[in-house]
Amino acid sequence: MQSLRVELGERSYPIHVGSGVLDDSSLYAANLRAGRAAIVTNTVVAPLYLERLRRALAAADVDSTEIVIPDGERAKDWRTLDRVFDALLAARCDRQTPIIALGGGVVGDLAGFAAAVYQRGVPFIQVPTTLLAQVDSSVGGKTAINHPGGKNMIGAFYQPLMVVSDVATLATLPPRELRAGLAEVIKHGFALDGAFAEWIEANIERLVAGNTDALIHAVTRSCELKAEVVADDERESGRRAVLNFGHTFAHAIETGMGYGKWLHGEAVAAGMVMAAELSARTNLIGERDVQRVRELIGRAGLPVAGPAELPPERYLELMAIDKKVAHGRVRFVLLDGVGRGVLRADPGERLVREAIAAAATAAAMH
Amino acid sequence: MQSLRVELGERSYPIHVGSGVLDDSSLYAANLRAGRAAIVTNTVVAPLYLERLRRALAAADVDSTEIVIPDGERAKDWRTLDRVFDALLAARCDRQTPIIALGGGVVGDLAGFAAAVYQRGVPFIQVPTTLLAQVDSSVGGKTAINHPGGKNMIGAFYQPLMVVSDVATLATLPPRELRAGLAEVIKHGFALDGAFAEWIEANIERLVAGNTDALIHAVTRSCELKAEVVADDERESGRRAVLNFGHTFAHAIETGMGYGKWLHGEAVAAGMVMAAELSARTNLIGERDVQRVRELIGRAGLPVAGPAELPPERYLELMAIDKKVAHGRVRFVLLDGVGRGVLRADPGERLVREAIAAAATAAAMH
Repeated sequence: MQSLRVELGERSYPIHVGSGVLDDSSLYAANLRAGRAAIVTNTVVAPLYLERLRRALAAADVDSTEIVIPDGERAKDWRTLDRVFDALLAARCDRQTPIIALGGGVVGDLAGFAAAVYQRGVPFIQVPTTLLAQVDSSVGGKTAINHPGGKNMIGAFYQPLMVVSDVATLATLPPRELRAGLAEVIKHGFALDGAFAEWIEANIERLVAGNTDALIHAVTRSCELKAEVVADDERESGRRAVLNFGHTFAHAIETGMGYGKWLHGEAVAAGMVMAAELSARTNLIGERDVQRVRELIGRAGLPVAGPAELPPERYLELMAIDKKVAHGRVRFVLLDGVGRGVLRADPGERLVREAIAAAATAAAMH
Repeated sequence: MQSLRVELGERSYPIHVGSGVLDDSSLYAANLRAGRAAIVTNTVVAPLYLERLRRALAAADVDSTEIVIPDGERAKDWRTLDRVFDALLAARCDRQTPIIALGGGVVGDLAGFAAAVYQRGVPFIQVPTTLLAQVDSSVGGKTAINHPGGKNMIGAFYQPLMVVSDVATLATLPPRELRAGLAEVIKHGFALDGAFAEWIEANIERLVAGNTDALIHAVTRSCELKAEVVADDERESGRRAVLNFGHTFAHAIETGMGYGKWLHGEAVAAGMVMAAELSARTNLIGERDVQRVRELIGRAGLPVAGPAELPPERYLELMAIDKKVAHGRVRFVLLDGVGRGVLRADPGERLVREAIAAAATAAAMH
């Protein structure tokens, strides 16, 4: 087991990464003195891991109440949240009763927001069971639900007491979701740490195949890198924006295709290639580095270009809407070398259009 | 104008108290650099003060969007909150757009919670227009909505950027509500500061009559006292409980009578007399101090005993339910002298019953 600490002053917390740590009752015993806890999970994860978590808690003398929500992004709404509140109240959960999120990003976001606002805040523990949740949502304290007017529109920054990331749970993850999670791992390498990017290049086949040791290292190092950035900028005012490498393009893809058609990680993968192309076009990196980004993403089985049905002009339209929402402050995270993401003002429509087209052309040539 | 500062590290904020400060555009100019703001108010306050606030903001070059919610505690629910989110989204309010609460406790609690969770938190400013909101809810950062399962069950601790308390707005407050607000002023004196208790004793008639200078001092000193306590204990784990002087009894009265029949301040007033009687019965204070509490509350035009239809046994039943919810940890705030509230374990049913009966007997004798 690897353990690291997210340093946020009095809100600091540990992340434990390993194989089989889900069953390690000593981890829960150290953090759950209340004698009981509420587990929030979904209909897909419950049959796989709920009973094991419950047994681990029971071994730590912790009684658990279970709240099972529907699977999928659509459950991340007020209606589901309100049912969680009903269940917490029915079980007489009080301010001391921790909420444990067992599942992927949707469960973590919703259960985390429930923990942030139930009785003005109760202890929160995350047990992420998807790669995306382990490398991304488990660090940073972002919790939210969706609103008809926008994704993640209602939420809070709320830090967990502890994160338990069991990479053995990734064995039941659909391969497509594992690869989508790897997009964020790759992002951490290219945007934050050149040495980690090299390690991923050397180990990408092991990661795609679900090798335990490789996954433990990828999750641990991703969390360490993200934790450093978040520690500098808990509420996302500046430096944390670097974590959005690939995301300006990805957002256009997700909106343009309708949410859910492309997985978030797939859109981020294509977006990173476009951002690398744009970095080359603003003379920050050379074609060789663009090629490294493209190649690694391709080897991970992820898309290196956007969907064929989305022409460059459509990206510009969608980005213009984002720009309006952000009062004209749309910025791009570019690469100033492998491992060095930098925030830059919009370099202009022509270069952005060229970068999107270049990604598509290079993809078509393979 | 009096100004004080609530010291909470990077979440510190000023409270400005005066007559006519609602119109002081320089206050807003210093805090609203975004160029626009969303005002949340209700149907009663809007016709009285919305236009003035809007003009003061306009003079500070701040455009405002207005969101008018229904009057009353029933508006403090998810449905109303969701309409606030709809309006914020429709007006394209972003993370930089401040939300200004113009009104009493319900508006402040709901708008504050909206500010805490809209886009994971936006700047928040309070312009309280009731005495209760000026002396109580404007310090402490408690925001919330109600849930069918309980009052204030869903919320957040979220500090404002600034509070602007205009005592001139109290002139339009129904006298009964002004008196209910005075109950919390009196509470701050008896529980926290003997000298302030004496000042209130010397000025209670001026306060009841709405004298401007007296109200400015009462609001300022109340906020200072509460701010000291909150600075010690932002998330209400220990010392902050002293602010609940009178509240264990008050909660029983409010629940027993059905919420809304007695105003919160009225229930707190009677509860303080009972808590004083209980303090005498546990030998913390003498009968003379109990008499001071009773007399001041009577002079404020507030009830010195509970409702006739609620026998002492019923309080014990209601407290037993609270006790169950709190896992047996019901405690009382008692007086260890005027100005010295102390937290004590439940001294037992007999003494509690006697204290409630004594308040009723003394009230009947007058």
